[in-house]
Amino acid sequence: MPTRLTNYFLRTLREDPSDAEVTSHKLLVRAGYIRRQAPGIFAWLPLGLRVKARIEQIIREEMTAAGAHEVHFPALLPREPYEATGRWEEYGDGIFRLKDRKDADYLLAPTHEEVFTLLVKDLYSSYKDLPLSIYQIQDKYRDEARPRAGLLRGREFTMKDAYSFDYTDEGLDTSYMAQRDAYERIFTRLGLDYVIVQADAGAMGGSRSEEFLHPTPVGEDTFVRSAGGYAANVEAFTTLAPPTRGYEKLTPQEVLDTPDTPTIQTLVDVANEKHPRPDGRPWTAADTLKNVVLALTHLDGTRELVVVGLPGDREVDLKRAEVAFAPAEVDAATEDDFRKHPGLVKGYIGPWSAEGPVLGEEAATGIRYVVDPRVVDGSGWITGANVEGKHVFGLVAGRDFGWDGTVEVAEVKPGDPAPDGSGPVELARGMEIGHVFQLGRKYAEALGLKVLAENGKLVTVTMGSYGIGVTRILAIIAEENNDEKGLVWPAAVSPFDVHVVAAGREAVAFEVAEQAAAALEAAGLEVLLDDRPKVSPGVKFGDAELIGIPRVLVAGRGAAEGEVELWDRRNGERSTLPLAEAIAALTA
Amino acid sequence: MPTRLTNYFLRTLREDPSDAEVTSHKLLVRAGYIRRQAPGIFAWLPLGLRVKARIEQIIREEMTAAGAHEVHFPALLPREPYEATGRWEEYGDGIFRLKDRKDADYLLAPTHEEVFTLLVKDLYSSYKDLPLSIYQIQDKYRDEARPRAGLLRGREFTMKDAYSFDYTDEGLDTSYMAQRDAYERIFTRLGLDYVIVQADAGAMGGSRSEEFLHPTPVGEDTFVRSAGGYAANVEAFTTLAPPTRGYEKLTPQEVLDTPDTPTIQTLVDVANEKHPRPDGRPWTAADTLKNVVLALTHLDGTRELVVVGLPGDREVDLKRAEVAFAPAEVDAATEDDFRKHPGLVKGYIGPWSAEGPVLGEEAATGIRYVVDPRVVDGSGWITGANVEGKHVFGLVAGRDFGWDGTVEVAEVKPGDPAPDGSGPVELARGMEIGHVFQLGRKYAEALGLKVLAENGKLVTVTMGSYGIGVTRILAIIAEENNDEKGLVWPAAVSPFDVHVVAAGREAVAFEVAEQAAAALEAAGLEVLLDDRPKVSPGVKFGDAELIGIPRVLVAGRGAAEGEVELWDRRNGERSTLPLAEAIAALTA
Repeated sequence: MPTRLTNYFLRTLREDPSDAEVTSHKLLVRAGYIRRQAPGIFAWLPLGLRVKARIEQIIREEMTAAGAHEVHFPALLPREPYEATGRWEEYGDGIFRLKDRKDADYLLAPTHEEVFTLLVKDLYSSYKDLPLSIYQIQDKYRDEARPRAGLLRGREFTMKDAYSFDYTDEGLDTSYMAQRDAYERIFTRLGLDYVIVQADAGAMGGSRSEEFLHPTPVGEDTFVRSAGGYAANVEAFTTLAPPTRGYEKLTPQEVLDTPDTPTIQTLVDVANEKHPRPDGRPWTAADTLKNVVLALTHLDGTRELVVVGLPGDREVDLKRAEVAFAPAEVDAATEDDFRKHPGLVKGYIGPWSAEGPVLGEEAATGIRYVVDPRVVDGSGWITGANVEGKHVFGLVAGRDFGWDGTVEVAEVKPGDPAPDGSGPVELARGMEIGHVFQLGRKYAEALGLKVLAENGKLVTVTMGSYGIGVTRILAIIAEENNDEKGLVWPAAVSPFDVHVVAAGREAVAFEVAEQAAAALEAAGLEVLLDDRPKVSPGVKFGDAELIGIPRVLVAGRGAAEGEVELWDRRNGERSTLPLAEAIAALTA
Repeated sequence: MPTRLTNYFLRTLREDPSDAEVTSHKLLVRAGYIRRQAPGIFAWLPLGLRVKARIEQIIREEMTAAGAHEVHFPALLPREPYEATGRWEEYGDGIFRLKDRKDADYLLAPTHEEVFTLLVKDLYSSYKDLPLSIYQIQDKYRDEARPRAGLLRGREFTMKDAYSFDYTDEGLDTSYMAQRDAYERIFTRLGLDYVIVQADAGAMGGSRSEEFLHPTPVGEDTFVRSAGGYAANVEAFTTLAPPTRGYEKLTPQEVLDTPDTPTIQTLVDVANEKHPRPDGRPWTAADTLKNVVLALTHLDGTRELVVVGLPGDREVDLKRAEVAFAPAEVDAATEDDFRKHPGLVKGYIGPWSAEGPVLGEEAATGIRYVVDPRVVDGSGWITGANVEGKHVFGLVAGRDFGWDGTVEVAEVKPGDPAPDGSGPVELARGMEIGHVFQLGRKYAEALGLKVLAENGKLVTVTMGSYGIGVTRILAIIAEENNDEKGLVWPAAVSPFDVHVVAAGREAVAFEVAEQAAAALEAAGLEVLLDDRPKVSPGVKFGDAELIGIPRVLVAGRGAAEGEVELWDRRNGERSTLPLAEAIAALTA
């Protein structure tokens, strides 16, 4: 039986919702798919629930094909497992916490690594039980600071999260690739463009990690890619270090007065004027070494200053810095920090000074000095002299100063070489639609998941974690498939296969529409039938266009002659043809 | 493709879980269907999820047939709607409350009347939009004080909750019956016995209310039923009051010394000795009027004493009292209460005394006197004289004392007459599996849901609420369908249609099992194939019996001759027959 609009729970709206900032949010509300309940929390109306179910069905089929079995965990979980892995604290304000009537701590789970690990520990004990891949499609919770953008970043959202369990690294690689391949099939079936980028392991711990990004100018993630095939999240991009050089031919460093050089550019100008490069090429910002003071806040609440040396033509990218110093939080140092450390001469900080190894002394009092990968042995720099009004020229790394480590905190720029040698990279924006991740043994170790191996010894299990944001994907598909009239769903996820419209007041139009709907349903298609008796054709057409089922059959003026109109919402084509031919075309 | 046990996520257990009190809980854990995460909170393993999905599918089909459309609301909801209807407070400790990062109040919804009402208010405005029935299948939360009995009473549980919206009382009746009929079809398809009993409206407000109870000795609800077709929850049972009588022929009341009558029986003995009934029939406890002091705690926290007069052969049923005095909480009065009210002479409380109208005076200070429906005008009683050591005989209701109201708080006893005249009732125990409920206009009024009627005037919408406990039903089915070897699922909800076992070490057994599984899957059945290579037939048979798929096909000794064994778990029959005949029998 077709679904009839006469008693369907649907109300299309003419106005965009006032709180909607993105197209998908506006259209999904206006066309009657979702309805806001609280910031970042939505109810699903019948049309929306159908699209969601179709996406979930595609995911289920591909999970089954990948050998994963479906389970379902509660959203409400006790604190203890998350305490054992440290995430109860790490999540900070980002999760919903609550207490039960006995004052026990619970959370609304943002992700389920811990309890999947414990479940397998609970039931399995032998290598013979492995490999195992299990998944769920489940509602998750994150207490986002600014839940905007509708379903793109909600506080309640649906995810497919899968977890693999192996006892060898090779097994993990195989399980990982099975999920990765399934993701490629899923996104292909959903008609969603994607780029697989190397990702940072981030707060999840672990080793190999890739994100599926949907490239879109409104994406919140930046990624880099080269023509040669390299792709990575900016957070995961690694700098191709220049070769080291010997010191033999290098001139000694020289300290010069450089008053009035508040910026890198003024310093470069002074350098070109007072201390030109011997070969005549002008100095550029890339020849200067900028020393930036960052303040790290560690998990235990302690605050640490760290000085980062990086080429003067680059800023610190705070997102990359957060990854480099994870799990600490990273901020710029404050005036107060500088007051407490008079050795840090603002505007003139350097790794070494004519008056003495200032940073060396500071290091002894707890300030680390770390550098960008471009600072290699033998590289020479114009940098601060740790004295007001003075810079040093020709300061050579390794000869004149050392460092406590190398960090990836400098911004990535278009044209930077890809680390795999595949050429210069470009920057693009994307939205994360999936994430595959080798967790390794982090969770299994924290929670004691071991199995007996062939040799009779206990081995710690190695795990993978694989996530797809179901509701986010739905929003992205809506974001990518619309026009000025409304949504235009890809057939694979459309709430119905065909939208049949009885247009006009003639009884015959309704009769033909009924015939068409019955024939299409008999052929196995799902039909939405607009049989509203007193609604004008114009309103019905407008609703059909807003709702966005890609194939529309209109029984109207030609109905008496047995003719109907077929619309293709995706390419805009309309054709008039006999009913039987229309049915044949739709069921072909 | 069949699902293979070689890599399925399943581990059957030999021992009952230590925390399990009921059979369904023990078997569902042992057979690998569910796994406890916290008190009253469970994870669903693959087998359990399949049974749950089958139950949900049956419910969906019948909801669709009843004209209801599926939606889905969040579990996490803001406080405001529940505040508007008073339920935020009413739920007391029974719900999970939490705050977000901005300190706003939220709850994990135990039921969704408020937000369904608001959604319809949000989108609909005309009588033309009605009737409307919408439902969801969704995870709900209640912070039960003692989550026991596995899935029978969990803290996280799945429900189907439907809501109907009409603008006339007749419309509500029609919507109500459509859901009620659907429930009958659902329980019939699930093979679940049920009794439809009149139910009390309880905390939900509203008018017509019926519960679907599954009769079972371990049920937590008591209900009454007569041979003539009456059935009601004990809380909803109403007493058939005796006829009133004139006072003309009744003798005056008389106060007598009755020391040493601490109990009703001693009082009856004294009465028969000192004040025999004129017609010679002995007095019984039913001739005495017991006056019980109850303490009510109202929603605003105030405490009120109330005296209830009821026949001496009956106790107060606190569950019925909770309903009679809802939403107040009801307790027995304490010693302290008696100390504060010296007029209440413990053991000798009566509605009237020879020394004066004691209760009348107390009533002026705030104590209400209410009576059982059997206390009617002209009925005579032996009761306390409000003086230590004295009782009054032949005290006539209406002549000698009055009351402030009639309440249904006395226990119901087998043999009590059904209020509809259909004969004496018996008491039985059952478990609630569904509830259909005419909410009326309570929620629509509280939340302002009105529509424009034909006459152009705004009318308040009238609503119904209809719930089925999905996970509870699953547990009850397990509770009712098992034997000493394990579960025995009804075919309609079995996780798979056929369990195929390759028994023994002969390759041919595995080949025949594979053939059988392939043929059955090709015929549209879902098959669980036990293809574990190194597991003994005994272990495989034990697992098959524990898991409880009703039809088992074993490829074992006769496999080389093309013969297999068919087991019917429900009736225990086993037969050996050629593979083709077995397939034919299973797909018939």
